[in-house]
Amino acid sequence: MTHVEELTKFLSIPSVSAQPEHAADVDRCADYLVQKLSSLGFSAKKYRTDIHPIVVAHSPHVEGKPTVLIYGHYDVMPVDPLSEWKSDPFAAEIREGRIYARGASDDKGEIMAHILGAQELIAELGSLPLNVTYLFEGEEERGSESLQELIKDPAMQKELACDVIVVSDTGMAAPDVPSFSYGLKGLCCFELEVHGPKMDLHSGIFGGAVANPITALCEMLASTHDENNHVTVEGFYDGVADIEDWEKESWKRVPGMSDAELAELTGVPSLRTEKGFSGAECVYARPTFEPNGISGGYEGEGSKTVIPTHAIAKISCRLVPGQDPVDIMRKVEAHFKKVCPPGITMKFTMQHAGDAYMSNPHSPFGKAAQKALHDTFGNPPVLVREGGSIPVVASMSKILGKDALFLGLDLPDSRIHSPNENMRLDIFEKGIAMAKSLLLLMSEVKA
Amino acid sequence: MTHVEELTKFLSIPSVSAQPEHAADVDRCADYLVQKLSSLGFSAKKYRTDIHPIVVAHSPHVEGKPTVLIYGHYDVMPVDPLSEWKSDPFAAEIREGRIYARGASDDKGEIMAHILGAQELIAELGSLPLNVTYLFEGEEERGSESLQELIKDPAMQKELACDVIVVSDTGMAAPDVPSFSYGLKGLCCFELEVHGPKMDLHSGIFGGAVANPITALCEMLASTHDENNHVTVEGFYDGVADIEDWEKESWKRVPGMSDAELAELTGVPSLRTEKGFSGAECVYARPTFEPNGISGGYEGEGSKTVIPTHAIAKISCRLVPGQDPVDIMRKVEAHFKKVCPPGITMKFTMQHAGDAYMSNPHSPFGKAAQKALHDTFGNPPVLVREGGSIPVVASMSKILGKDALFLGLDLPDSRIHSPNENMRLDIFEKGIAMAKSLLLLMSEVKA
Repeated sequence: MTHVEELTKFLSIPSVSAQPEHAADVDRCADYLVQKLSSLGFSAKKYRTDIHPIVVAHSPHVEGKPTVLIYGHYDVMPVDPLSEWKSDPFAAEIREGRIYARGASDDKGEIMAHILGAQELIAELGSLPLNVTYLFEGEEERGSESLQELIKDPAMQKELACDVIVVSDTGMAAPDVPSFSYGLKGLCCFELEVHGPKMDLHSGIFGGAVANPITALCEMLASTHDENNHVTVEGFYDGVADIEDWEKESWKRVPGMSDAELAELTGVPSLRTEKGFSGAECVYARPTFEPNGISGGYEGEGSKTVIPTHAIAKISCRLVPGQDPVDIMRKVEAHFKKVCPPGITMKFTMQHAGDAYMSNPHSPFGKAAQKALHDTFGNPPVLVREGGSIPVVASMSKILGKDALFLGLDLPDSRIHSPNENMRLDIFEKGIAMAKSLLLLMSEVKA
Repeated sequence: MTHVEELTKFLSIPSVSAQPEHAADVDRCADYLVQKLSSLGFSAKKYRTDIHPIVVAHSPHVEGKPTVLIYGHYDVMPVDPLSEWKSDPFAAEIREGRIYARGASDDKGEIMAHILGAQELIAELGSLPLNVTYLFEGEEERGSESLQELIKDPAMQKELACDVIVVSDTGMAAPDVPSFSYGLKGLCCFELEVHGPKMDLHSGIFGGAVANPITALCEMLASTHDENNHVTVEGFYDGVADIEDWEKESWKRVPGMSDAELAELTGVPSLRTEKGFSGAECVYARPTFEPNGISGGYEGEGSKTVIPTHAIAKISCRLVPGQDPVDIMRKVEAHFKKVCPPGITMKFTMQHAGDAYMSNPHSPFGKAAQKALHDTFGNPPVLVREGGSIPVVASMSKILGKDALFLGLDLPDSRIHSPNENMRLDIFEKGIAMAKSLLLLMSEVKA
């Protein structure tokens, strides 16, 4: 099977972790990985959990060589709105040098690049020159609850013991400019539901007398930002460090990350950033507060003049080092309680949370990783921080006591989490070459 | 067939005017009325329109007697959320002396009361003692567009020529306290859609750099009211008259309309009224601005950390005499343009509109109507203004040059426009008696 055929097969499994109706698909996807890795001589195992399984696989032990833990996730985001996809999200289609499917870049394409890199190395050398442990989970897109739980188990900590953690679930600046990330944002997701009258009310017979839950929800959400787009939640920025001057300087040179380029890429007339910060600075290093969904009242055709019983918003905050996700959610809840108008009762529900993370880009393994990127892509990697979050990585790094290094292959136009998610085929092939090079270079590092 | 059987049959036709999939049902409902009225000796006709048909029926002419135009609508509101109905909205169920179905009170129950009142009078006297014209439309819940058009036609104005217009599509204060309304609110309905990025964005990779359409929509909607719940749209209150002292006094005595009773009825901890006004005053005589629906981003299970491409709100304003609905919509649009944040483009869509209306409660026909209510319910009617709107009535009254009188049978707990809409069966029977008495009393008025 060609590399692309292998990827296409992997992408055809609709492993959407957030939607119960896909639970069996997620499980099937884990089985596929166990089977594939076993065929390469790994001892691969599927760990059942209360939600979705976790796959752990070890290469045959090589004495005196370092152990690299390679983490990825085989679950994917929901696909809706399906109507905006140009092709079936789970029947990968190749158009103009890109493969289009949910998970193509986040994160199945990168998992497959690592697996195929190892496969080629085994084919060339007969075996891997170091110890590789793959850790692939099925809940990253919904909070990594099970893995967070599993790594508390000392037996699992022993099984995952390593010298360095490699994560390929992040972005790269441009096709010829690899990125080496030394920071990840944290995340907390929560819901705010507001309740008003006990039944939908006629907006004429009761309008003006009773608080409208939609109006109340809008007022409460609008109250979270001031006119400078600073988040107004009390204590939200406590512990947030200033951006270093060298970071500001280097980020100005990251391809595609100028304000003009970001506006062009996203198709907006202009950016809307926190006052005093560039788009790149906000994405890499400033905490954010974003409603991801809102719903209430009549959403059908025509009009229906009701005051609805309730309205709900799904919200997530991206956090930076110094912020504790649960503490932030408590502060947000307190803010909403303070601004909740009369006649309205609110329900605040914490969903999942993950810490922000920063690593040392200049360790021996860090240097090896940067060289692998440089050798493969022909240019030195830019040093950036991620706007995205991999909640479980911070925990793993802390528990296992090792650095996590981020070598990402998502391009800014990979449309991850969006309709028409894709990966460039040339980047996929380079990803395979980078994975090979990475294992070779790391096998020389004295653990 | 018993009265209730007649009503049940009428209620079984899902004549939802706002939803295209029910167009055939609306048409079938018009046919049902033509058939029923013809069977009573009326010359009944179904007028086709671009949307839903209009039924006009005339009783056999009685020389020297006044002509009463009785207006109602046979279309109903959508039923969602269907899950909150205790029984099928289109299979009427009787529980504890009430008949539960969409349209039971708004407005099929009242139409049927008038028809059955005439039927009984014909049975007793052999014929009606005056001239009755029924005008039943199928678009009231979506703006009466076709009837608004039809009454511009001089031939139709001739056909609808009358001495007084009677409307039974309003409320009554309590089961033993009939209401005679001398005012209706106007209405305008519109949509606000805001657009941001050209595709759904990963809230980590772009969050903080790009305006979030949900945040923008919430800010724009929150900006429409100040801390006193006054509407902040410039010029919104231009031409709005103060409430007369005698009105304030009489409204304090309307059963069920105290702030405490309104809160109890709607199940809210407290009312949220415009500062300086009671709940009743806001409902009867203050213009309102109410979002009726809001939608944007991910509304499914679990969470999805996106910044969506767009968000939308459906909004309606209830208006009072002195406000022009189209002028108000222009002012609201101008307000939204003023507050639309950078990075966001907005689309404002006007839907339907109708004028507010006030009539003279003390005309001879007005006095006859009040006597019919008094005789039937055993108490004098309270004089109120409606929070609801019947957009076409103001136009008709103006064009035909006659007063419209409002004799309503909806109780505050009839749940019109809501799940479990209902009508008390004793009120339905009294409505039939009232309709009989009304025709007898009006037949004595010198036109």
